[in-house]
Amino acid sequence: MPGEFDFVRWVSEHTPPDPRVAVGPGDDCAVLRRPPGDLLVTTDLLTEGVDFLLAECGPRAVGRKAMAVNLSDIAAMAGRPVGAVAAVALPPNGMTVAREITAGLREVADRYGCPLTGGDTNSWAGGLVVAVTVFGVPTGRGPVLRSGARPGDWLFVTGPLGGSLLGRHLEPVPRLAEAEALHAAIELRAMLDLSDGLARDLGHLAAASGCGAVVDPALVPIHPDAGRRSTLTGRPPLDHALTDGEDFELLFAVSPAYGERLLRASPVPVWKVGECVAGGGVRLADGRPLAGGWEHPL
Amino acid sequence: MPGEFDFVRWVSEHTPPDPRVAVGPGDDCAVLRRPPGDLLVTTDLLTEGVDFLLAECGPRAVGRKAMAVNLSDIAAMAGRPVGAVAAVALPPNGMTVAREITAGLREVADRYGCPLTGGDTNSWAGGLVVAVTVFGVPTGRGPVLRSGARPGDWLFVTGPLGGSLLGRHLEPVPRLAEAEALHAAIELRAMLDLSDGLARDLGHLAAASGCGAVVDPALVPIHPDAGRRSTLTGRPPLDHALTDGEDFELLFAVSPAYGERLLRASPVPVWKVGECVAGGGVRLADGRPLAGGWEHPL
Repeated sequence: MPGEFDFVRWVSEHTPPDPRVAVGPGDDCAVLRRPPGDLLVTTDLLTEGVDFLLAECGPRAVGRKAMAVNLSDIAAMAGRPVGAVAAVALPPNGMTVAREITAGLREVADRYGCPLTGGDTNSWAGGLVVAVTVFGVPTGRGPVLRSGARPGDWLFVTGPLGGSLLGRHLEPVPRLAEAEALHAAIELRAMLDLSDGLARDLGHLAAASGCGAVVDPALVPIHPDAGRRSTLTGRPPLDHALTDGEDFELLFAVSPAYGERLLRASPVPVWKVGECVAGGGVRLADGRPLAGGWEHPL
Repeated sequence: MPGEFDFVRWVSEHTPPDPRVAVGPGDDCAVLRRPPGDLLVTTDLLTEGVDFLLAECGPRAVGRKAMAVNLSDIAAMAGRPVGAVAAVALPPNGMTVAREITAGLREVADRYGCPLTGGDTNSWAGGLVVAVTVFGVPTGRGPVLRSGARPGDWLFVTGPLGGSLLGRHLEPVPRLAEAEALHAAIELRAMLDLSDGLARDLGHLAAASGCGAVVDPALVPIHPDAGRRSTLTGRPPLDHALTDGEDFELLFAVSPAYGERLLRASPVPVWKVGECVAGGGVRLADGRPLAGGWEHPL
């Protein structure tokens, strides 16, 4: 979502504050304050050659991924999806591609009870582009932003990380039920979904919250795919777990008291990975810096 | 919006009816039935080389058009916009392009009181693609669909037609205020915004409503641009008014009683162009067919 040009930041810097909208740079959804309730809105766009290789994965997988990454943004705010639209730029003779993408979109939308209400398809001479917009409503305690973490908070993730490029990046599992269950059980102070990798995304969360963070490398759950990639790249599995990205697990901060409770009895699987600290920056427990340019030591 | 692959039709044919959503093939917006009120949602995507020539018009005009065509879809349902997001696929080194597009999006969104809440920008090796999604709320009597016209209804448009390719297609004026004023004054039975040209779009409205329509060529308001194009193409100005498209004026059907009232005192400029009739098809008053392949007589 961030990319080289931070659209949300740019818009917010050039627009007077609007009481009808709440969104911070990097937040996973905008919050439309529309009485009597808030509406969450997120949009994510996938492009051929960057987010997928059409010839390798086929159009149905593109549709599934496009829907799943947007639902993951709704999950990151502890929201519940209520509807989706898609806009698709089709390569020439794209009729079959269009049907397959739409089937993929619908497959994932249906799985999470989100009506796909339609959208727009256009043909052009270029490659395939799929833009999905999903709306949701907040659950229980309201939308969870990135900016609420405090020094001393504990940091958790909802699943093992790394190596998604081996295939998992095409089939993200939006942690909607997990977010809602956590949100009902405890107070989530800050949350996001891991698209850029734990190192960078924790940097985003810490910066938005005005604090720093320390990750304990011994605690980070490492996906078997990170090990597989390690044998290909020669880099340690931890490195892949910290930096590969496209995990689409949730990263969240809670008070130590709630953290203790999660360690005793969490409604869903969670792994503690570190803690928030005063000051800025994100580092490993041994002092190596993580955010703003984690470089593996090889 | 329709294009070669009718996304909305395909989705509706492959998805069981969902009480949370109302959308018909070709409707300008989906209606999310979200108590206590409906939410209108529309998305439209512009691609380089099809909807604009970037080198000719510049990125700011692309942003303006992308926002305006979506606001026009909200107008077509007599809605009021409440928020927008945009997803942009940027050509390489597209930072300046991104800023200019966003400025254009914001310029038009601001003009119509619609908060631009952010979105997503991605760089890729391909051309420029801009997908905008706008949400709105219905006004007064609720969303106006395409499907409510009846034989005997009178047909009106909100402005002169034709020749938009000479430049107006880049600066559409979403008829939001006009739609709302009409909707407050009279009952609008069916409405859409003219993107494909009066001939084709009236075909859509008539087909959705299960009736036919007759257009009186003497009544069609012809834009001066249609005359200018005529001198370039050798085709009659009426031909351009009927078929050029991208006028983004509203086409709507009302009962004869309300039609009489509009002719006496309309809250906004309107032109009567014809009437709905029993049976199917759309034709000129002299019998020449219009919809499903209007061919100029040259």
